[in-house]
Amino acid sequence: MADRHTHSVGLVEPITLHVGEPMALDCGKTLSQFDLVYETYGTLNAARSNAILICHALSGNHHAAGYHNETDAKPGWWDKCIGPGKMIDTNRFFVVSLANLGGYNGSTGPHSLHPETGRYYGPDFPVLTCGDWVRSQDILRDALDIDQWAAVVGGSLGGMQVMQWSIDYPDRLAHAIVIAAAPKLSAQNIAFNEIARQAIVTDPEFHGGRYYEHDVVPRRGLMLARMLGHITYLSDEAMRAKFGRDLRAGRINYGFDVEFQVESYLRYQGQSFVDRFDANTYLLMTKALDYFDPAYATGGDLAAAFAPVTARFLVVSFSSDWRFSPARSREIVDALVDAGKQVSYAEVTSDLGHDDFLLTLPHYVNSLRGYLGRVADEAGT
Amino acid sequence: MADRHTHSVGLVEPITLHVGEPMALDCGKTLSQFDLVYETYGTLNAARSNAILICHALSGNHHAAGYHNETDAKPGWWDKCIGPGKMIDTNRFFVVSLANLGGYNGSTGPHSLHPETGRYYGPDFPVLTCGDWVRSQDILRDALDIDQWAAVVGGSLGGMQVMQWSIDYPDRLAHAIVIAAAPKLSAQNIAFNEIARQAIVTDPEFHGGRYYEHDVVPRRGLMLARMLGHITYLSDEAMRAKFGRDLRAGRINYGFDVEFQVESYLRYQGQSFVDRFDANTYLLMTKALDYFDPAYATGGDLAAAFAPVTARFLVVSFSSDWRFSPARSREIVDALVDAGKQVSYAEVTSDLGHDDFLLTLPHYVNSLRGYLGRVADEAGT
Repeated sequence: MADRHTHSVGLVEPITLHVGEPMALDCGKTLSQFDLVYETYGTLNAARSNAILICHALSGNHHAAGYHNETDAKPGWWDKCIGPGKMIDTNRFFVVSLANLGGYNGSTGPHSLHPETGRYYGPDFPVLTCGDWVRSQDILRDALDIDQWAAVVGGSLGGMQVMQWSIDYPDRLAHAIVIAAAPKLSAQNIAFNEIARQAIVTDPEFHGGRYYEHDVVPRRGLMLARMLGHITYLSDEAMRAKFGRDLRAGRINYGFDVEFQVESYLRYQGQSFVDRFDANTYLLMTKALDYFDPAYATGGDLAAAFAPVTARFLVVSFSSDWRFSPARSREIVDALVDAGKQVSYAEVTSDLGHDDFLLTLPHYVNSLRGYLGRVADEAGT
Repeated sequence: MADRHTHSVGLVEPITLHVGEPMALDCGKTLSQFDLVYETYGTLNAARSNAILICHALSGNHHAAGYHNETDAKPGWWDKCIGPGKMIDTNRFFVVSLANLGGYNGSTGPHSLHPETGRYYGPDFPVLTCGDWVRSQDILRDALDIDQWAAVVGGSLGGMQVMQWSIDYPDRLAHAIVIAAAPKLSAQNIAFNEIARQAIVTDPEFHGGRYYEHDVVPRRGLMLARMLGHITYLSDEAMRAKFGRDLRAGRINYGFDVEFQVESYLRYQGQSFVDRFDANTYLLMTKALDYFDPAYATGGDLAAAFAPVTARFLVVSFSSDWRFSPARSREIVDALVDAGKQVSYAEVTSDLGHDDFLLTLPHYVNSLRGYLGRVADEAGT
């Protein structure tokens, strides 16, 4: 365990912030009260100027780094990038990572009990947007008595929340770091999400979202949704390099059991996801992705949407990412430039696809480390 | 109806060839007897030298052109391209289009009765390969007393059968026309197929493939499979042009009903497919796609696999096709060139994606029309 503790933030414990005040949501509904679960890594400096907020992606949660106990098999989801001396350096920064509303095993979500009825929220949990998440994240900021984040950082759906922060609370962040994201989903992105949702809601064990009360889970639907996600997370080249057309048994069996290695991989990914994720949460997360479109209010003019921004941006994309390709990141960069904002852009040559943002390609790590080093200097940490 | 008859082959009638001889299959099993259903368009010349065989793709069947009755809402699946004066000109050619073994509502398949047991084949129908299909198509050729096809033509999975023909029966075709195909599936292609299959086999109404006997169909699974297929048939650009992020109700509803036009389109495509296609057939077709790999026997050397070929090739690809991109067609062309074969190649600039092979882009039509004109001259028709 010594190694773990040296190279990671070590043992961490989730903290719960109970919010007793009602919060209005974009859908028109209100959450009368809710919990936000978060973790922190590193130390807040005396000036309270070195805090970084991490926004998570579709299947993320508050547990971004370190271990929950000595026997944990795996660390947090972004442990490769957050820790002492790592890309997001906990020797210099105080890192805050929360679970978004609507999630599973963390902040209040469909699997929580409705305070008025005592029943599981299930399908009654309101549909959420990136705007709602950022609003709740700002409540956490206030509770932590942090006047301004040194940076807000996120990949994929997390990067969308970063953009939303920069527009909705311009004074509350000095830097915005948007990784492997897009300014809005394409029709094809929405199509993938819709098929995943249909897989879930047509599963007979979905029970209109009330499966908790039937003591079942829509395993098949959630499994298919995750398998589908994996196609978009990995590049075609990565799949070729990883699996090619390798046969699992070394020869063709002419049957419907697993034949190619890639089938085995996908089934495993799908099945293991079911044990750690919630179908209603999956629905909510994909809807938030679909809805994200900051330029909707400005008639499609993204530069106009960025008008209020004061944060300086770092935008990062990966050449092999076909879910949110570099072209999508350049749309963000171009709009920021057109709006007269300060933005740096790194396009990282990569092989693996969208999931590269979770890993540690040197050009990626160096870009963020260099940028964040200057952010830390500026924060006096 | 006059217009229909002028611009199409008019009313056509399917013909059934009953094959009483057993046929050995690649999987090691044997079909003791089977039916092949086909249609013909145009007239066989006296020299019997002007016959073209059409090989169909995943969801195709024998009904490629014309109408079955005066009130048919739709003509055959390739009616835009087959007919008097069309790309495949029935004024000059005798066109033969059959339903492949394993299909639905045509040749013998899972929905047929097993001659020994009297039960539906269902999951007992043997797994098929392009090699098996071509073997059965050669039986039809023989029954029609055609010594050599002037050309064998197919798009997508149909194009794979064309390649198989050129390797397995080199003397039986003068020309091979391979459209929007690939020399084998990539890991990503297989991944899409596997998810479609998992959607079907995990549907509780699949009943291990014996759903006919339960008087149900695995609607949900087949619907998801088709929705998924449609993502790969349309290019991202085509989806953008067709749907963009258009909202169906003109505004966001914050719910799980159809929100974006693309969702509506996909649900419609999925649902209407269920009424005209069979889940067991879908499984078989995707397996045949996965298995196709003529270079498997030559250790991955496609040029070596093409060694027996005597047919002259035309290979056509579409720039916006991301299911089988132009790069995949160029692999075929390069291997043919390396093998010293005669091959023409047309890369058609297109917007719509894989499905462009069913349509009539001028460069596409002109390429095929020009090529087939020379084939017709050569055939003396």
